[in-house]
Amino acid sequence: MVKPGTDQEEAARIVARYDLIELPVVDDKGKLLGAITVDDVIDVIVKESGEDLLKLAATVKVTAPYLAAKITDLVKKRVLWLIMLCLVEVVVAFIISSFEKVISATIALAFFIPLISSTGGNSGVQTSTLVIRGLATGELSLRDLLRILVKESMVSTLLGLVISPFLFALSFAVTFQLWVSIILALAIIIIIFVVNLMGGIMPLFVAKIGIDPATISAPLVTTVADAIGLTIYFLVAVLVLG
Amino acid sequence: MVKPGTDQEEAARIVARYDLIELPVVDDKGKLLGAITVDDVIDVIVKESGEDLLKLAATVKVTAPYLAAKITDLVKKRVLWLIMLCLVEVVVAFIISSFEKVISATIALAFFIPLISSTGGNSGVQTSTLVIRGLATGELSLRDLLRILVKESMVSTLLGLVISPFLFALSFAVTFQLWVSIILALAIIIIIFVVNLMGGIMPLFVAKIGIDPATISAPLVTTVADAIGLTIYFLVAVLVLG
Repeated sequence: MVKPGTDQEEAARIVARYDLIELPVVDDKGKLLGAITVDDVIDVIVKESGEDLLKLAATVKVTAPYLAAKITDLVKKRVLWLIMLCLVEVVVAFIISSFEKVISATIALAFFIPLISSTGGNSGVQTSTLVIRGLATGELSLRDLLRILVKESMVSTLLGLVISPFLFALSFAVTFQLWVSIILALAIIIIIFVVNLMGGIMPLFVAKIGIDPATISAPLVTTVADAIGLTIYFLVAVLVLG
Repeated sequence: MVKPGTDQEEAARIVARYDLIELPVVDDKGKLLGAITVDDVIDVIVKESGEDLLKLAATVKVTAPYLAAKITDLVKKRVLWLIMLCLVEVVVAFIISSFEKVISATIALAFFIPLISSTGGNSGVQTSTLVIRGLATGELSLRDLLRILVKESMVSTLLGLVISPFLFALSFAVTFQLWVSIILALAIIIIIFVVNLMGGIMPLFVAKIGIDPATISAPLVTTVADAIGLTIYFLVAVLVLG
């Protein structure tokens, strides 16, 4: 039984878990107000999962079918996200500009900026997706913070140690620059470690302040991972080359 | 009614569309073999939508709950994706390295590499997500290719024209370099146009060759958008500065 104020995703989860055909809705005194049928539930699940997909893709719900949607509507729904993400990337540009000296001295460092962004972002999103899924199924909560941190520390150390020599070899094959390859190999271990911990923590705190972590975590994690990853990369470069 | 060989997602879609409680399964002669009940369908939808989310996040299904999963299993499931994406980014590094001359002459170009990657990628994924959704609901098919291209041409021209002056102002505020800001403003219009057309076409062709476009399109579109976007950016730089 659920109360009238219950979130539709929560009600859907109950019906799905217990294979119900109908879920009674009752008021505080236990009086029957109506029922949620199983086909309502399917509609909710289909709608919500579609919305979650769209949110991950940094776009907004377009109510009309694609071919019928007005061009200006499509632009309006998409432009805000793009401008917001541009704004963040201008901050990233500002961070990189503060390492101008080391970049001019070793131009090859710039070649691997996309690799650092994308590996950090992908790795962080992997962790946050696993944690978001754990939150959604009710397996994880804020109390598991320490256990998640311990687990991710070990997973990301291993990931870093596997990827690092591989990256060293590849980057050396492209640039023939030993120091750049050493910087990459060192930086990637630190980046994967830091970004994975962040990807594990962020959904928990976003959920804690009452926001659905599936809504914002992927773009948020990717962007923060970008900034953190590049900062670590260029700091390692300054330490190694300076 | 469905046949025994019908895909479970397809069967789930029929039940959802017609609000059925049961869907009979019949053989070729119309003999009743059994029925799919509505709670089977909910299980399928929940499972498939969770899998789609994981695929978008470039990770693989972890069968055990997060806290119970073995560390080595988590590493194994994640490392392959990270190495594959690293490999592609090494190709991107190679592309950037071919523009070494223009980058050394104007270091500030390097500051905006993440912005170009991310704006191209985000914009392309927006388009591909809209098209994938259209394919999933059955609204779009390969026959709509031309209509999608026409629509995306208009949407992306508008998007480019809105974002370009905004980006010009922001980048000038960060670098005080007029030519770099002009290059960015020009390049972003071309990049959004090309990448959106690609994001619209790619899911159609992936679906055509029999692969579920939701499975691979997001990482694929982002990565291809990276390579295309940066190539356009540096080509514009060479044309403007050379």
